[in-house]
Amino acid sequence: MRENMIIGDRAETKKAFSEADVRQFAILSTDDNPLHLDPEFAKTTIFGQRIVHGALVSSLISGLLGRELPGYGAIYLGQTYAFKKPIYLDEEITAYVEIVNIRQDKPIMTLKTVCLNSKGEVAIEGEATVRV
Amino acid sequence: MRENMIIGDRAETKKAFSEADVRQFAILSTDDNPLHLDPEFAKTTIFGQRIVHGALVSSLISGLLGRELPGYGAIYLGQTYAFKKPIYLDEEITAYVEIVNIRQDKPIMTLKTVCLNSKGEVAIEGEATVRV
Repeated sequence: MRENMIIGDRAETKKAFSEADVRQFAILSTDDNPLHLDPEFAKTTIFGQRIVHGALVSSLISGLLGRELPGYGAIYLGQTYAFKKPIYLDEEITAYVEIVNIRQDKPIMTLKTVCLNSKGEVAIEGEATVRV
Repeated sequence: MRENMIIGDRAETKKAFSEADVRQFAILSTDDNPLHLDPEFAKTTIFGQRIVHGALVSSLISGLLGRELPGYGAIYLGQTYAFKKPIYLDEEITAYVEIVNIRQDKPIMTLKTVCLNSKGEVAIEGEATVRV
């Protein structure tokens, strides 16, 4: 786990999910919604094309928390997500987590969790609570 | 999408995640925390053995929302999760979603979202908000 963490500490990653990633996640999660898998169906929706599962995009957040900040050994207590904008297949996502609160009475911290789309707009935002 | 939905409507699924599932998700999500992958490391943690990623367990919820209730065409607006107990590899999970509120002014509903461990204890609970 990272040491001497303070409010404002931040970890970031970038990733795009391919069609193969989305198909694999559809099988894993049993979410085979055609909005993610079927280009013809997706054209008929307000998104106009296939989008990546929100749960797959937001998995980048759990990756950052588990690997980088606070890192190995952290225990995930809670998470909120607001899904603001879609992420399309092969679109580069920038995900980051940033410490916004560290409790004095217990080893628990809160992090702001954000996924930006390729235009830099907030696609998913929320808050994670972790025990360190 | 399901028709004539009312408060109390519920959809449920059962699934266990194997070691192969967890390894696949670790690659997809870039969360290769040894708590999920390394039996020796996991022994040294409070869990005593490897656990499934919380984000992978909770993906069953997005599957239920997308496929069954409200079903295809629903748009995911938000989700909260509280992670209460671990889910171990190959442990059968029962996940369900249940409508708890339907707004009168907008086509938006709230569902309670729950994942139970194999003993029937709440492992993850939260709330989803979807546009229908």
